[in-house]
Amino acid sequence: MTDKKRRETSSSQLGRRRKTARAKDQAAYAARREELIAHAAEVFSKEGYDRTTLSDIAERAGTDRASVYYYVSSKEELFQEVCSGMLEQNLAAAEEIAMRDNAPREKLELIIAHHMSTHERGFPQWSVLVQEMRRITGADTTWTRDAVEKMRRYEAIVRSILEDGIADGTIRADVPSRLAMNAIFGMLNWTHRWFRPDGQYNAAQVAAAFAAITLDGLSKDTE
Amino acid sequence: MTDKKRRETSSSQLGRRRKTARAKDQAAYAARREELIAHAAEVFSKEGYDRTTLSDIAERAGTDRASVYYYVSSKEELFQEVCSGMLEQNLAAAEEIAMRDNAPREKLELIIAHHMSTHERGFPQWSVLVQEMRRITGADTTWTRDAVEKMRRYEAIVRSILEDGIADGTIRADVPSRLAMNAIFGMLNWTHRWFRPDGQYNAAQVAAAFAAITLDGLSKDTE
Repeated sequence: MTDKKRRETSSSQLGRRRKTARAKDQAAYAARREELIAHAAEVFSKEGYDRTTLSDIAERAGTDRASVYYYVSSKEELFQEVCSGMLEQNLAAAEEIAMRDNAPREKLELIIAHHMSTHERGFPQWSVLVQEMRRITGADTTWTRDAVEKMRRYEAIVRSILEDGIADGTIRADVPSRLAMNAIFGMLNWTHRWFRPDGQYNAAQVAAAFAAITLDGLSKDTE
Repeated sequence: MTDKKRRETSSSQLGRRRKTARAKDQAAYAARREELIAHAAEVFSKEGYDRTTLSDIAERAGTDRASVYYYVSSKEELFQEVCSGMLEQNLAAAEEIAMRDNAPREKLELIIAHHMSTHERGFPQWSVLVQEMRRITGADTTWTRDAVEKMRRYEAIVRSILEDGIADGTIRADVPSRLAMNAIFGMLNWTHRWFRPDGQYNAAQVAAAFAAITLDGLSKDTE
């Protein structure tokens, strides 16, 4: 058997083992896989994707490399799961909020609050996504194209709410919606450098501050 | 002669050549070195530091690797120059603005405008610094400690201006100064993902939008 053949056979055997395990006890399998994804995010966040090995992740999860292969096929799969989970939650929430009857201002407040809450609950998954953004936007695979598309849709929803507000006169028209959208995502995404769930301010406090700044500004004479 | 000895000799010869060249025509040498730093920033920005080689930078600068060594000793030196230049300019301007007699609000507007203007003129040097932030904050060398210290001082100046405003009643007190500072640096630093000097909005327009959002907010009813 050639080395290549052996690797393929071994890989397909692992694939079958993953399938069997999933079928046998779906809930336990899914829960353990989610745990692994959370551990992977912690290691990626600390070491960066490139420097992280599957063994590092296994060690953090209190298991070994072979057992990790029982749940995922590669480090790349773990990375994708870390990012996809966050992106899908944020996008789904933004889509749902955009459909509500609330005023544009309230929708923006809700999206900012939801984003920070997802960020806090899944910490440090969103931080990994932001830190490794170049791995997503700089590559051209089915998965990266889909992830970029989801990010664009998320941004487009925020921009569209801003434009609804400009149209109905509740949001000022002299700040271009594209710049306002980038300012909002700047505040939110830069939290990857400083926000910690056990830090001085929790997600709700950060979201309240960001919404206050974005909508009412810091100057006292404007209130 | 051993390989190690040969490398050391060759390195010290290059060091001497750099010294001689600097002494001979300081202005031309400095100008050519600045050009190299600008070219290095372009390649770092496009490829990321890790994937960039000195040959890539030489090629972009229309020269060869040996000639690059005439101006700098390593890729790391080029990276440090790219980051230090931006950091020093921003810090010096913030220190100067902080000393003025202007109201806190005006000082913040001036710092935001200066930051975007430096970003535009030196583009993509500030983007490289933000993209490669982990190389700076994650390492522990004399240079990284100094760079981190400069970033902290830059942030501290902005925070201190916010606190002056809270103290004199012109900045609202219900948004913690630390969160307001992080929001401002979030907007500014996130521009590394989307701002381009030849893009839809120039630095002055972006700065005006950011200052308007930060200080007055987007809601029309607050004006």
